[in-house]
Amino acid sequence: MNERILLSHGAGGGASQRLIDDLFMSKLGNDLLLQKNDATILPALPGRIAMSTDSFVVQPLFFRGGNIGKLAVCGTVNDLAVQGAIPRYLSLGLIIEEGLAYVDLERIIDSIAETCSQAGVKIVTGDTKVVNKGQADGVYINTTGLGYIPEGREISGSLAQPGDVVIINGNIGEHGMAVMSQRSGIDWETDLQSDCAPLNGLIAEVFKVTTAVHVMRDPTRGGVATTLNEIAEQSGVGIKLNENSLPIPDTVQGACEMLGFDPLYVANEGKVLIIVPAQVQEAVLATLRQHSLGVNAVVIGEVVAEHPGTVTLKTNLGGERILDMLEGELLPRIC
Amino acid sequence: MNERILLSHGAGGGASQRLIDDLFMSKLGNDLLLQKNDATILPALPGRIAMSTDSFVVQPLFFRGGNIGKLAVCGTVNDLAVQGAIPRYLSLGLIIEEGLAYVDLERIIDSIAETCSQAGVKIVTGDTKVVNKGQADGVYINTTGLGYIPEGREISGSLAQPGDVVIINGNIGEHGMAVMSQRSGIDWETDLQSDCAPLNGLIAEVFKVTTAVHVMRDPTRGGVATTLNEIAEQSGVGIKLNENSLPIPDTVQGACEMLGFDPLYVANEGKVLIIVPAQVQEAVLATLRQHSLGVNAVVIGEVVAEHPGTVTLKTNLGGERILDMLEGELLPRIC
Repeated sequence: MNERILLSHGAGGGASQRLIDDLFMSKLGNDLLLQKNDATILPALPGRIAMSTDSFVVQPLFFRGGNIGKLAVCGTVNDLAVQGAIPRYLSLGLIIEEGLAYVDLERIIDSIAETCSQAGVKIVTGDTKVVNKGQADGVYINTTGLGYIPEGREISGSLAQPGDVVIINGNIGEHGMAVMSQRSGIDWETDLQSDCAPLNGLIAEVFKVTTAVHVMRDPTRGGVATTLNEIAEQSGVGIKLNENSLPIPDTVQGACEMLGFDPLYVANEGKVLIIVPAQVQEAVLATLRQHSLGVNAVVIGEVVAEHPGTVTLKTNLGGERILDMLEGELLPRIC
Repeated sequence: MNERILLSHGAGGGASQRLIDDLFMSKLGNDLLLQKNDATILPALPGRIAMSTDSFVVQPLFFRGGNIGKLAVCGTVNDLAVQGAIPRYLSLGLIIEEGLAYVDLERIIDSIAETCSQAGVKIVTGDTKVVNKGQADGVYINTTGLGYIPEGREISGSLAQPGDVVIINGNIGEHGMAVMSQRSGIDWETDLQSDCAPLNGLIAEVFKVTTAVHVMRDPTRGGVATTLNEIAEQSGVGIKLNENSLPIPDTVQGACEMLGFDPLYVANEGKVLIIVPAQVQEAVLATLRQHSLGVNAVVIGEVVAEHPGTVTLKTNLGGERILDMLEGELLPRIC
């Protein structure tokens, strides 16, 4: 195998076949991927189907706590899981820059394999394109996921109701600030790690204690503030956050201050916002805290009837300010 | 709306929302896409599910007979259709270069909408990333498709049998040479058009006359020769082509001679190779020829037991030569 990826690896001929066999099939292979046809035939899914797609263009490709491959699996698995779906199958589309080191691609594929195994999903179909040197920053990845939704789960951004509470499963801002601090060269001053993780196992635990989940969403691009704005708008409700209950670690706060960011707008890749009726909040919190990905779970706010479409923050000083949706480009190439 | 795409259009905030609403929802919107959740919930599919993914990086973005948007729909629809599936749903992942003209993106989305409507499929979920100027050559597109397979269809690259014939639905080499002649600046000398088209309607007609289809595959990257090599290897058979029956138009032949390509290795985007028992060849040919995408359908070769894994060409001069799988990089960025 060549030490670097060449244009011929994406040309559909012999070199493509060898890359597929030596790397993709050997590390990601399973009964379904091994069909090796233009489309893969999957067993029927027991219930309504959930489908989600995401492209990943993060820079750098490798960051503390993960890399673009792990991120590409987690991102799509999480988009399915927050819709109440059991993730099952992923497609993998790679756009590789000519000259990418083979060992780097190998590390990325290893991470994909490991994260798929952790999340209980399979790569069932794939595609590889190679573009000329100077394009694609190493590699861009698209994953598209399929899952099924068990009976009785009705989750949507439009179902938040006054009286509900907003729970998050842990610390805010870690993914975005891990990537940004590395990119800006201040990472030697912090031990920030991306929170990148597949959340479907944690979410499955929540459904064991209640099906009364109104909204779940992962606050990735745009962060907690933007995601809650979308929900407030879709549901026609107001959302009030309490600053003193926000789980923002000192490392994130410090990096944000150095680089001029607001942690509420910073991307997370292992967090889920769960909106449930207040009656079940204790049961949900207890369940989350028993899971390694939910140890710091906490209620951060409530859903109200006033000011529909608006998210407000009650500050530590007792004031209140409106948290708008992200405008402009705060953090490019974060996922 | 800005006249050019900005990094903020991919940041997940307000600008992203407006791009989604003004462009994607207004042109591609349907009951499923309008759910606007992280994953889209689809009705159950009646049968086994087929899934396929493809990324498109073609240069130039607009070419005679199509553009990257039309290509992205056709490519994935065809990958499903050649597996015997009825294509239903597509995801759409866009990686856009900062600075892309809004009108160009609009033209691409218009083509996607038109081709989806022609093929009877819906875009049900999407994602947009924007990367810095100088990356992504305008736009890269990933589409991942879902369909279902009606009872009784068993198609695979591994099912070709001695005694079968190899049919193609028309002219060879048009897509690749339309793109290459445009890129190399000789397009003013030809009227070459890409054959880019969704083939599911044509393929549905074939299944009305026979279910004895052993293999179908669209000869895209690597062309007819590479695709048949894959089939010969998967099925453990030999394939013999007759040069004098190959439908290679003079325009393709001329452009290939000028640019130094072999038409049998040039990509097609509206062609399907159909391998069926000789007994049904007349019925299949008659059906194909009644459809606008199959007027020039013809038998180009036969499946034999000798020389398993090998494709040979009987030349016009009576000789025989081996057609290897594509090696190296004949035609970069063709799809």
